[in-house]
Amino acid sequence: MSSIVIAQGGGPTAVINETLRGAVLAARRRDPALRILGARFGVRGLTAGDMVDLGALSDADLARLGRTPNAALGSTRDKPDPAACDAILAALDALSARAFVYIGGNDTAGTLELLRRRSAGGRSFVHAPKTIDNDLEANDHVPGFISAGLFVAQAFASMELDFRAMPGIYVAIVMGRHAGFLTAAPTAWQRREEDAPHLVYAPEHPFSLPRFLEEVAAVHDRLGRCVVAMSEGVQDETGRPLAEALAGAAERDAHGNLQLTGGDLGLAVQAALKARFPKARARVDTLGYLPRGYLGVIDETDRREALAAGQFAAESAFETSGSVALQFDGSRTAPALVPLEAVAGRTRHMPAAFFAGPSTISEEGRAYFRRLLPLRPDLFAPFV
Amino acid sequence: MSSIVIAQGGGPTAVINETLRGAVLAARRRDPALRILGARFGVRGLTAGDMVDLGALSDADLARLGRTPNAALGSTRDKPDPAACDAILAALDALSARAFVYIGGNDTAGTLELLRRRSAGGRSFVHAPKTIDNDLEANDHVPGFISAGLFVAQAFASMELDFRAMPGIYVAIVMGRHAGFLTAAPTAWQRREEDAPHLVYAPEHPFSLPRFLEEVAAVHDRLGRCVVAMSEGVQDETGRPLAEALAGAAERDAHGNLQLTGGDLGLAVQAALKARFPKARARVDTLGYLPRGYLGVIDETDRREALAAGQFAAESAFETSGSVALQFDGSRTAPALVPLEAVAGRTRHMPAAFFAGPSTISEEGRAYFRRLLPLRPDLFAPFV
Repeated sequence: MSSIVIAQGGGPTAVINETLRGAVLAARRRDPALRILGARFGVRGLTAGDMVDLGALSDADLARLGRTPNAALGSTRDKPDPAACDAILAALDALSARAFVYIGGNDTAGTLELLRRRSAGGRSFVHAPKTIDNDLEANDHVPGFISAGLFVAQAFASMELDFRAMPGIYVAIVMGRHAGFLTAAPTAWQRREEDAPHLVYAPEHPFSLPRFLEEVAAVHDRLGRCVVAMSEGVQDETGRPLAEALAGAAERDAHGNLQLTGGDLGLAVQAALKARFPKARARVDTLGYLPRGYLGVIDETDRREALAAGQFAAESAFETSGSVALQFDGSRTAPALVPLEAVAGRTRHMPAAFFAGPSTISEEGRAYFRRLLPLRPDLFAPFV
Repeated sequence: MSSIVIAQGGGPTAVINETLRGAVLAARRRDPALRILGARFGVRGLTAGDMVDLGALSDADLARLGRTPNAALGSTRDKPDPAACDAILAALDALSARAFVYIGGNDTAGTLELLRRRSAGGRSFVHAPKTIDNDLEANDHVPGFISAGLFVAQAFASMELDFRAMPGIYVAIVMGRHAGFLTAAPTAWQRREEDAPHLVYAPEHPFSLPRFLEEVAAVHDRLGRCVVAMSEGVQDETGRPLAEALAGAAERDAHGNLQLTGGDLGLAVQAALKARFPKARARVDTLGYLPRGYLGVIDETDRREALAAGQFAAESAFETSGSVALQFDGSRTAPALVPLEAVAGRTRHMPAAFFAGPSTISEEGRAYFRRLLPLRPDLFAPFV
């Protein structure tokens, strides 16, 4: 009896299990006789024989599964070498798998492309997108980003209120290795020029500590407070990640990604602020893992799009290989299938037009974030 | 024309403006002719003449105000000296204020008690409670704590799922200078012994880094993961805050409170974990300011109790001075008036019976937190 195998790779999101649910529902609808198998902990489950029967889940259990953040099948950051690829392909053969759907980011797409090239054919490899970084090429935006962006937008709206109540300087360091989308997302909720975040430092522009301190001083002088969004991945003028420059020894995972902790960067920024503004209340928080799969902040649009991406991935897998991409035609967002090479191992950065300056998001950029994260007017009170 | 003056002091909470709204509504109902004035930035507004007319707000604006987290009037951590007290009392005289309602924690109650003792009489001083630390004496729990606890509980439930998906060690450092309530709150959502938080380090028990590492190792060996809740205020065996011991120079505010940044503690814990578990995925996040006034996580019970506390404060202010305390009679929570001295400058710690050991919360403790933070079963999916 033939099967379809589904797995999850990379870091979690709040809606990654909606994509899993969508793939299960679509595969079941398309071919009720097909076995629907889940590999635990990504491709590791295939070679270790650690599989679960997703087809056996009731609709009610699937619905609860979809509402739960973080990869329910387990995940991995392993990058298979040629021998591991052969073992995975042999496992897919043994399961009579006609398709392998792998939910993840650009590294996961890269693993699928490796497998597709090495495969003898007769089987499709489909990538279903997820990432809080929003850094997949060919996508308008990526499932998981909106929920993470909502978490960050709500954090900055809260800190704006906090620092209106007790003036000072606040910096939140936000995840984002190469792309600043998540760091810039809270600009969606700026109603007035004086609203936070007042300054945005993304990896797309070189970061200079002296310039940062002068820009903070200017805002602080003007408003009595300054609330700053800074990416974990900000780089100095030589392209070296500031976290790496400050941390000394860098750690990298199997895909060559620098493992950023943010804490070192936060501490260095805190020390620089204390030295420059000895009398001001100055605070640096590193948001860390919180925005990426927070159970209390799951956006409904994000959930719906994640489900649609999973359905489209499984439907596509009956035809051909590729990567599912969310595309926007000017009025609506819908999934499309693009070649794996268009996404695999590539990084989408924020367009240059999204910046009005090295630390300022343009109206075009804000319009993009506002489209994904509409302002909720009920959340804002009159300030007495 | 006589007036009632309302102000807000100390750190923010998610529901502090519901207490403000409650005080305005009750004062207006009790005496429609009374002027209802808000002092901006705590007692600073009184001496600076920075006041707003709260009585002029419409019910709709008041409702929106109540839904907004963080002190809408502005706040302060100033501790007035005798000269400042006299200036505040003179300002209250000039406003013909028959009552001063000050919303805040134990330091705010202390300021009110100073004013009351120095006052010539004929005016009442009422403290309305708020704090995410839950550390006010005479209270079962304090408005602001439930919303902050819900934020932290949701964070730990999310991290439990994250570290089930990719095993490793996770430590979240949670605000709490002297009391571990907020750090222990996520134990409310432990459904099984294997659920996070696996270890809880509160300021009530001395912290030992070697013992911490051995306890983490034991959980990690058993479950393949270990998710830890640690208070910013943990202290070594000599009673010295660990953050202070690690940070070297300590900064203290006007009330003598150590200003904890958490970052130093987080970095030290991260380094210790890396040295002891070089091959494990180990991550330390400092939740920082996020839980204390997060716009996306406002608990309805907390909101209701904050409103009731504000109403009770204003009603009491027509009679006498005191501190409003939320008390629990075994079936329901209701506000009562206690002497200011019962709360002012005192700190409530977690009862000894809340601990089953130095890093374990007892069933009695968990039952307390479960009463305030009921488990929401719809949030949890079957794990495939």
